[in-house]
Amino acid sequence: MAPSGPDLAHPDLARPDLTVRSASGGTRAVERCRLLTRPPFSADPNGLTRAYLTPAHAEACRQIAEWMAQAGMEPRIDAAGNLIGRYSGASDRPALLIGSHIDSVRDAGAFDGPLGVMLGIECAAALHLQGRRLPFPIDVIAFGDEEGSRFPASMLTSRAVAGTLDPADLAIADGDGVTLAEALAGFGRDAGTFLSARYPTGSAFAYLEAHIEQGPVLEAEGLALGVVTAIAGQRRLAVTFTGTPGHAGTSAMTLRRDALAAAAEAVLAVERIARAGPDDLVATVGRLSVAPGATNVVPGRVDFTIEGRAGADMVRDRATAEILAALDTIGAARGIALAVEETQVLPASPCAPALAERLADAVRTATGAPARRLVSGAGHDAMVMAALAPTAMLFIRCTGGISHNPAEDVHAADVELALAAMLHFIEGLAAESEAA
Amino acid sequence: MAPSGPDLAHPDLARPDLTVRSASGGTRAVERCRLLTRPPFSADPNGLTRAYLTPAHAEACRQIAEWMAQAGMEPRIDAAGNLIGRYSGASDRPALLIGSHIDSVRDAGAFDGPLGVMLGIECAAALHLQGRRLPFPIDVIAFGDEEGSRFPASMLTSRAVAGTLDPADLAIADGDGVTLAEALAGFGRDAGTFLSARYPTGSAFAYLEAHIEQGPVLEAEGLALGVVTAIAGQRRLAVTFTGTPGHAGTSAMTLRRDALAAAAEAVLAVERIARAGPDDLVATVGRLSVAPGATNVVPGRVDFTIEGRAGADMVRDRATAEILAALDTIGAARGIALAVEETQVLPASPCAPALAERLADAVRTATGAPARRLVSGAGHDAMVMAALAPTAMLFIRCTGGISHNPAEDVHAADVELALAAMLHFIEGLAAESEAA
Repeated sequence: MAPSGPDLAHPDLARPDLTVRSASGGTRAVERCRLLTRPPFSADPNGLTRAYLTPAHAEACRQIAEWMAQAGMEPRIDAAGNLIGRYSGASDRPALLIGSHIDSVRDAGAFDGPLGVMLGIECAAALHLQGRRLPFPIDVIAFGDEEGSRFPASMLTSRAVAGTLDPADLAIADGDGVTLAEALAGFGRDAGTFLSARYPTGSAFAYLEAHIEQGPVLEAEGLALGVVTAIAGQRRLAVTFTGTPGHAGTSAMTLRRDALAAAAEAVLAVERIARAGPDDLVATVGRLSVAPGATNVVPGRVDFTIEGRAGADMVRDRATAEILAALDTIGAARGIALAVEETQVLPASPCAPALAERLADAVRTATGAPARRLVSGAGHDAMVMAALAPTAMLFIRCTGGISHNPAEDVHAADVELALAAMLHFIEGLAAESEAA
Repeated sequence: MAPSGPDLAHPDLARPDLTVRSASGGTRAVERCRLLTRPPFSADPNGLTRAYLTPAHAEACRQIAEWMAQAGMEPRIDAAGNLIGRYSGASDRPALLIGSHIDSVRDAGAFDGPLGVMLGIECAAALHLQGRRLPFPIDVIAFGDEEGSRFPASMLTSRAVAGTLDPADLAIADGDGVTLAEALAGFGRDAGTFLSARYPTGSAFAYLEAHIEQGPVLEAEGLALGVVTAIAGQRRLAVTFTGTPGHAGTSAMTLRRDALAAAAEAVLAVERIARAGPDDLVATVGRLSVAPGATNVVPGRVDFTIEGRAGADMVRDRATAEILAALDTIGAARGIALAVEETQVLPASPCAPALAERLADAVRTATGAPARRLVSGAGHDAMVMAALAPTAMLFIRCTGGISHNPAEDVHAADVELALAAMLHFIEGLAAESEAA
């Protein structure tokens, strides 16, 4: 299939030296991620910013398509602006999908997204080097929009592929007023055909995504890899405590109704309840504002957010109920009025247990150690792709748990192990498929 | 002495009905305060805003001067824009000063300041009605600037009277760029002579100020009046806790360094330490800001203020030391960096114990109950006037402890008791003076 849309063969004279010297797949994947942080693959000369359907995105598609072709794949851009490289199989059976995203947040790190795509390409490259065809094709998908850093929506492109997108979701514009339809036209795509990016039901039998952990758990436990059991669901609350503002000098301590003191108790209650739960339960007060907010005035009102996540909705909901009870108790004890509004509920998305088991076996084989199972607190394309096919997700340790930041980093050795685990996983699927 | 400056006899055809019908001094003082909340005595037709050296201030001076004259006093405007009414004594001995301020904050209540001035006038009126002259003159001073609501300074005019003003403090301008000198010129005053408002040393033997409590203590204890033992000093700290921002979904609870959780502990420690101290010790976290301040990001940095006040500097400083130790402990336990800057230290200003004792006797005589002694958490002109003469301060219960708010209110019956106590206090001074 000839590449369409952005001309994937378009030469760019201003390109940096893109020679990747490593012959080792994991290291090459890391080096390629680093190359992709610079112009023309970033809109920012001093850091990585690559939003969906921008020139930087088109340049990245061209470059990655070249790498796909080198790995024996046929690249194409789909109707939603995803770059998809197919490594053909010995038959026309449903495909194994391996994917992640190549868009980024503003001033991003190198690995959140691209590393999973590069590893998919390395899987194909390893097979290609052996001249090996599997019983099924592999499609490596570089999703165009996961972060939602350009349009007020996220995972638009995996939703298109998975067939879960509502056409009404396409009537959006970016911060400069450019509509999604206009941005698509600039990318050589027609908004009217966006939904045709959908993979037909039954055309894929599994989806595998490798991603940096974006958290500190693997590093803290000295592990290179982890197997994701579920992508956490979320509940968000907006809370207001209303007490009585007062003169900081004349309001005796015993007579105060200090909204900030109540909120302080709430912050600690949220922390205590989340700590008491399973490892994957987290709860956060991320925003908090104090009114009137003067040094010499006892706070009369505090607004804050609570966000809870867990791999199982029941765990998160039980914690939320405990938090709500604690807020009630705090408000009542202090004579502070409480108002709570639930602003968001997203269900958890479990990975397919059988695939997680297979991936854990592969990790054990690759690393010689039992696989750590963990819940992803962050959302990923895999969460969406679960509607199309059973999913598996491999987490790779990242330095300091840092992500969405130029300091985001990985060890090349960990990425080599990740590649090995992915290949073991694929071999296992192939063996089973051949046996069937 | 003829009134000078703003023409105190100037007729104003637009004036509201200023007839005060009560013949009872305390009630009349309350009614007059209420009259002074309306134009032309307020810049705001819907509430009270009367800033220093504005037309509303000049109109208030004219009206109050009229009331002073009715009470047998000679009014004048001094070089700093204070209105001073003298009720002459039988001799030229040093004067008893009775004062408070007639400027207001924006959207103020009726009683913060003016009530003390009206009560001073009622003291003179009561003596005048009896045709009585004391051994000493009484000067009732309506200070022009206490709140500091116009210029970036406060208590300018009592500092001028007390002789504690630095000439450099006069080089200021209001929010519209009008300099103090220009504002004084518009008020018929010359900035060059401002400091001549100073009372010569020895020209006053005591300063008495009646004021609403601006706090909830008297109301909570069911008392009409209280005697101030000191005006609290202040220490202000600016505190920063710096942890590590993190993804709210991927940062495991046990691995977080959450600056807001640390700040929450600090807020509660401040409250606990202040509650454990004497009644007059208060400490407040009034401002607090969270960065980055997103629902889905663990707070990396929190900046907040701590303000502590007490009637004795030692009490406040001991509490501050405890608070600093608590901040250290909290930061160390959580791996959160702490930075503290002291932004303000104001010493406490004790009232003269002998005068407080005399005022307590007067309160006891007037109310039939022992006098509650309390520390003023708010600053007052008395704090400044202590440099000129021994001071005494009488607090009057206010509704709900509310002040700096249109809802500010007093019971007329309490104000009657306040007037009676002030007259007992003055009688005592006169008896002592006559005996000397």
